[in-house]
Amino acid sequence: LLLCLFAGALSIPDPRLREALIQLEASMQTGGEMVLTDAEQRLDARLCKLKQEEMVRADFPPAMHFFKARDLIRTSPMFSLLQKMPKGGALHVHDFSIVDTEWLVKNVSYRPHCYMCFTDNQSVRFTFLSRWPKRLPHCSPWTLLENLRAQTINVTDLDNSIMGNLTLFTQQDPETVYPSQDAVWDRFEQTFLALWGLVTYAPVFRDYYYRGLTQFYMDNVMYLELRALLPGIYELDGSTHDTAWTLKTYQEITRQFTADHPDFFGARVIFTVHRGVNISVMTAAVEEAMKLQRDFPDIMAGFDLVGREDRGRPLWYFRDALSLPVERGVTLPFFFHAGETDLEGTEVDQNLLDALLLNTSRIGHGFALLRHPVAKDISRKREVAVEVCPISNQVLKLVNDLRNHPAAALMSESHPVVISADDPAMFGASGLSYDFYEAFVGFGGLRSHIGSLKQLAINSIRYSSLTRKQQEKALALWQRRWDKFVSENAF
Amino acid sequence: LLLCLFAGALSIPDPRLREALIQLEASMQTGGEMVLTDAEQRLDARLCKLKQEEMVRADFPPAMHFFKARDLIRTSPMFSLLQKMPKGGALHVHDFSIVDTEWLVKNVSYRPHCYMCFTDNQSVRFTFLSRWPKRLPHCSPWTLLENLRAQTINVTDLDNSIMGNLTLFTQQDPETVYPSQDAVWDRFEQTFLALWGLVTYAPVFRDYYYRGLTQFYMDNVMYLELRALLPGIYELDGSTHDTAWTLKTYQEITRQFTADHPDFFGARVIFTVHRGVNISVMTAAVEEAMKLQRDFPDIMAGFDLVGREDRGRPLWYFRDALSLPVERGVTLPFFFHAGETDLEGTEVDQNLLDALLLNTSRIGHGFALLRHPVAKDISRKREVAVEVCPISNQVLKLVNDLRNHPAAALMSESHPVVISADDPAMFGASGLSYDFYEAFVGFGGLRSHIGSLKQLAINSIRYSSLTRKQQEKALALWQRRWDKFVSENAF
Ligand SMILES: [Zn+2]
Ligand SMILES: [Zn+2]
Repeated sequence: LLLCLFAGALSIPDPRLREALIQLEASMQTGGEMVLTDAEQRLDARLCKLKQEEMVRADFPPAMHFFKARDLIRTSPMFSLLQKMPKGGALHVHDFSIVDTEWLVKNVSYRPHCYMCFTDNQSVRFTFLSRWPKRLPHCSPWTLLENLRAQTINVTDLDNSIMGNLTLFTQQDPETVYPSQDAVWDRFEQTFLALWGLVTYAPVFRDYYYRGLTQFYMDNVMYLELRALLPGIYELDGSTHDTAWTLKTYQEITRQFTADHPDFFGARVIFTVHRGVNISVMTAAVEEAMKLQRDFPDIMAGFDLVGREDRGRPLWYFRDALSLPVERGVTLPFFFHAGETDLEGTEVDQNLLDALLLNTSRIGHGFALLRHPVAKDISRKREVAVEVCPISNQVLKLVNDLRNHPAAALMSESHPVVISADDPAMFGASGLSYDFYEAFVGFGGLRSHIGSLKQLAINSIRYSSLTRKQQEKALALWQRRWDKFVSENAF
Repeated sequence: LLLCLFAGALSIPDPRLREALIQLEASMQTGGEMVLTDAEQRLDARLCKLKQEEMVRADFPPAMHFFKARDLIRTSPMFSLLQKMPKGGALHVHDFSIVDTEWLVKNVSYRPHCYMCFTDNQSVRFTFLSRWPKRLPHCSPWTLLENLRAQTINVTDLDNSIMGNLTLFTQQDPETVYPSQDAVWDRFEQTFLALWGLVTYAPVFRDYYYRGLTQFYMDNVMYLELRALLPGIYELDGSTHDTAWTLKTYQEITRQFTADHPDFFGARVIFTVHRGVNISVMTAAVEEAMKLQRDFPDIMAGFDLVGREDRGRPLWYFRDALSLPVERGVTLPFFFHAGETDLEGTEVDQNLLDALLLNTSRIGHGFALLRHPVAKDISRKREVAVEVCPISNQVLKLVNDLRNHPAAALMSESHPVVISADDPAMFGASGLSYDFYEAFVGFGGLRSHIGSLKQLAINSIRYSSLTRKQQEKALALWQRRWDKFVSENAF
């Protein structure tokens, strides 16, 4: 409409037209049309001031690598406000990166029967076993950590070196330690293998998940959708449980946690399989997923593939397996990672469109979406939300300065997005607040405001896998917490 | 249309629909609908193979800083093809950065009466004068370069150190030398001051411009729109000419060059003023511009402001001065730099919208355009082309990996764009081919093809300041050269 006014011939710019166009653009952004209460407006004034303070700093955190920016962020008044803010749900987080690494070392690795060995490529492996474990290929013989610590003079050093193996986070210069995407992804996979033996031990598995929920809860996240590999969890005698057991355990602990914390809404699980598998393994996984979806409809949210897109097989390679549910008339929602790539125009770069063709419910990352106008249009029209994980994209070297993150463009036109954390413990983060900081201060720019934050929180419930009815309930719970947050922090 | 087909309920993905959507997306990109001749298709196959070879390199040049990537690019077969390609016009280049620095040192600084001094902040200044020049503040006393060279043992070292002062390019690690936007812009301005005394000396000025045209001509660029400050050019006796003289000299040398090279189409000048000036200086400059536009309609293309946007005054600050031409019913086309910034939501970030409100004919850089959906829409609908200068944006630290350049998104949906070089000599580049390489291999991705290149060349004529009639003539000339290029290189 305003654009029509603007279609005329050469004229002196009209300040009212200018103001109207500025307002139009502002209203188009995520949360741009949100009507704010008086208290929200007061809180917004405070947020705006804090944001300006962040932007005039010599070291502007969103322009820096997160490993260097973390302490600056954590100690900023903006961050403490964002931490207190009820952020709704975390819709893109992976099972074994939700608890801080320190706990894995200081608590888990101190438990009895914990063995460790050193791999040829300078990583470590762990296992718990009632007897001495059999030696692994490409590994040193196992040592009981208890014995190793007893023989070690500086146990703190030992623990720190173990900790360094369980996260990508480092105090050294991240550009030197991880010079390329290949380098950082290789370390990512080694780190994952390192913590595997710790977190898949049944007693730890339960505690780990409970503690993960606690960390998100403490960060004022009220709901989780966990991408989970549902591996065979093992006991001290070496026996392992089946997939259903793992899922059931997630369900039990979620129930227990929700009972302990009535203002936490719950969690659901997206069953994930590595995209490196072959077609028959994928087919079996989809079959299993359909079964789980039928048997555990409350906790099971759907299905996804994980692992580095650039190196794995594209979705289209698995199209037959992934078409099984529709063929059989069985419900199995998809939540595909897609477009977490720089390789424009390659087979992998088709994942975005293929995810949509396969009726994905959301898109994990969607970093390449701006380069795919057709996929972008479908995602917008069908409200297939993009799960934006800024810190993950930066650490895994898709983008350097987070002001250039494609979500800046997506949010400027209210594309359906949610903010998530992917693998917070791996990146030295925790909960959602660090990613909210990057989104709000980094690619939100000065224009984004409390309405944007509110919209992002609401999106995280609206685009969740919850039923409409559950969403209403969750929104009501969130609104109560939000009102409390606003009234306590607006002055 | 296809999207309607796709609106249905859950279904197995149809490979034909998929293919159609892929084709739709491919056709939406810059040049995506170009109909190719047989010869063009053969050349395209070759280009495609070359591009794939570039993409599998361990060091992918567009992901690297240009200073590190330059030699890789220059020695690539892709680059030699792009060099031979008739690229049309260069619509965004600045007056004193079009000739390689080596010539300034090896030729210009060896001319008689050339004085040099050293500034307090480790830069240099030059002047030509028939008598000994007066000492400058914050500078060492002047030395005649001829004398200095006679006293110097290693003249090569001296010349190299002078050369280092006349360009940003460095063999050292660019991230270390230029750690921030402030650092690189400060050096940019110092470098500019250093070469000022050389290039504004009348005999050099003429040679410099002729040589600049030669460099673009050798790079198969047939037309130039030069943003020029039109400074007072000085003679050996210290006297200076007025602005009209400078513009007239541009006109004379352009005519001479075109006479010497009949397949070169010509050049026009966009008069530029530094955005750091105050309102009365700006008003006087606009008055002067209107006069020049009236007196030299052939060579004068229009008006623009230069200098770092983040530190200068926003366009809106000068709205009264910039409205003068429309108020008086006088034609003065604008070619505003706008959106060369990361400071989303600030006053400076309004330049994009304001440039459009002021009826700009093109947008210089428009790096922030994706974050401004209203401005983007107006630019698209009114065909206000964006002058994309990839290497400039990388060196001046707006973007690191050029695959993330916003023009990737703009080109994926045929937004009106042209590729240009901004200040090639400053960045160690020359002509347009390096920037075409970054655009085609970097943000074009595998999908962009010879149609994209052809469209970019055609855009550079269509979006030029030439009249329709001149454009037709230029296009005909370009087409002959293009056909020759295709037939010589398709096999
Ligand atoms: Zn993920
Ligand atoms: Zn420029």
